[in-house]
Amino acid sequence: MTQTLTPRRPQPDGSAIDAMQALLADDLAAVESLLVARAASPVAMIPDMSGYIVSAGGKRLRPMVTLAAAHAAGGANTATHALATAVEYIHTATLLHDDVVDDSDLRRGKRAAKHLWGNSGSILVGDFLFARAFTLMVETGSLDILDILSHASTVIAEGEVRQLAAQGRLDLPTEDYLAIIEAKTAALFEAAARAGALSGGGESLADPLAAYGKNLGLAFQIVDDALDYGGTTAVIGKAVGDDFREGKLTMPVIIARRRGSEEEKAFWDRAMNVETQQESDLARAIHLIRATGAAEATVAEAKAYASLAKQTLNALPASAYRDMLDTLADFCVSRVS
Amino acid sequence: MTQTLTPRRPQPDGSAIDAMQALLADDLAAVESLLVARAASPVAMIPDMSGYIVSAGGKRLRPMVTLAAAHAAGGANTATHALATAVEYIHTATLLHDDVVDDSDLRRGKRAAKHLWGNSGSILVGDFLFARAFTLMVETGSLDILDILSHASTVIAEGEVRQLAAQGRLDLPTEDYLAIIEAKTAALFEAAARAGALSGGGESLADPLAAYGKNLGLAFQIVDDALDYGGTTAVIGKAVGDDFREGKLTMPVIIARRRGSEEEKAFWDRAMNVETQQESDLARAIHLIRATGAAEATVAEAKAYASLAKQTLNALPASAYRDMLDTLADFCVSRVS
Repeated sequence: MTQTLTPRRPQPDGSAIDAMQALLADDLAAVESLLVARAASPVAMIPDMSGYIVSAGGKRLRPMVTLAAAHAAGGANTATHALATAVEYIHTATLLHDDVVDDSDLRRGKRAAKHLWGNSGSILVGDFLFARAFTLMVETGSLDILDILSHASTVIAEGEVRQLAAQGRLDLPTEDYLAIIEAKTAALFEAAARAGALSGGGESLADPLAAYGKNLGLAFQIVDDALDYGGTTAVIGKAVGDDFREGKLTMPVIIARRRGSEEEKAFWDRAMNVETQQESDLARAIHLIRATGAAEATVAEAKAYASLAKQTLNALPASAYRDMLDTLADFCVSRVS
Repeated sequence: MTQTLTPRRPQPDGSAIDAMQALLADDLAAVESLLVARAASPVAMIPDMSGYIVSAGGKRLRPMVTLAAAHAAGGANTATHALATAVEYIHTATLLHDDVVDDSDLRRGKRAAKHLWGNSGSILVGDFLFARAFTLMVETGSLDILDILSHASTVIAEGEVRQLAAQGRLDLPTEDYLAIIEAKTAALFEAAARAGALSGGGESLADPLAAYGKNLGLAFQIVDDALDYGGTTAVIGKAVGDDFREGKLTMPVIIARRRGSEEEKAFWDRAMNVETQQESDLARAIHLIRATGAAEATVAEAKAYASLAKQTLNALPASAYRDMLDTLADFCVSRVS
């Protein structure tokens, strides 16, 4: 991949997210209210656990994409707010189930929500939020929106199962890896942008906005995977090694292994198996990912998808929201560059 | 509970289910085809696992209720078939997640699907089937049906979480227990009957059919709970002791403990805790459940709900399908009487 970014504006710094959130402040406030209100239940574990995760996490990237797509396509309304809340609930449900899937297979230390409420709570509260997402979408009154998001939910689950089935396949082709993250991560960004556009009344802009969402989601996930090994330079912000300790195959490992010597391939095969992985392996993994240029290649791949996302915005009329989506694509990759 | 059944027809024998299935043969065949076709995926684990569970189990009680409700209210059609398939997928997804919830908390021996595909497979394929259920419902083109089933799915998950939170509470009031099974079991029967009626075009019959479904679901679950301790007489068909070994609180135990001496209460408190339960405890549990009349009381409760289900059918015009629903209510309780 030699494609590079040609930013329309200066590379966003840490305050870029604040500026984007400010543009959507009223809408995001409505979504935050819904996130709390619609997780209400006489069964205390539901609002407790939901609140813990929902408020713990996040920059609300998926609601932001949903809201900005609606605005760029005509305007956000109460249906958009319900949709953006539903999208965040689907994301949260996926996180809750992922925690159990990763831990139960790999016997790793517990994560926060699981630590407090257990595997069963994570599974069942995840189910609740997923079901609640659909009640919210019914409230939009749009079968098209329900169609888009129910289809995306199927694709996400299919991608998760595919990832599970690929576990331990260290020779996984890059294309298979990309197909997995397109399903498990990019599909929700794509659906959020497409459905957001429809909720805003901009049917003709649904396709380019969906393409934006898909490419943004790919860039976002690849960056996340690169950051788990410290990116191209130093450790920034995020704790490194989570994917590694779970034996989760991601792009930096696939490329480093492919480019490695026979001895290095043998290292990867042993180290990516949680049964035979040793404490000191992470340092060597990070070294090999940089030495083989796998870190650079991974970041270049992410930048290429961010660039594709930005290109699709040319189909949109100029607006502050189009600019915001452009900035968002830069922001995603700025985390590693 | 002294209310008794006054059957409109002779108590159904083992062939009753065959007669009911024969009445719905064409519709059930369509549903069986959809159950296979809509679980298709290039990710082999999905059709493999879904096929294993869907074909392993079941009398298709929930699809039968859906289809018969549609017929009783006007007639079944392709939307009814999609709906009945969606209802069975939701049920299957719940079973898959229940297996993990029960096992992971209680460290019991593995069940079939989990044994072959693991916890993670059960969680993620369950998610797939749940999402697929919603794509099927979108195909009915009815926001009302989506509203009913998305609401029911929320209630089911809420009931499951409530059951989880009640674990170990041996003094759980009967009413709380009933609220839990109304949510986790009866809500799906209720929604299946109501949405089935709507799909058949019989809006005016939706309320009585929903009431039928709810009461049938309660009767069905209470009978199931009684059967886990061998019913009122001998062990019939189903293996006993599953709920007991999981420490799952059900009506026979609640009543037996409430009616027991202090020594017996202490027995229940120790035996229903999986940490302190002993191999020989099941025999005493079954003895106490019979000696205190808890088995009889549980069966009487189930019969009362079956009777309520049958009464609601009086609001329907006479038809072979109304008769079938009447027989189905008898069939559910015939398993213990």
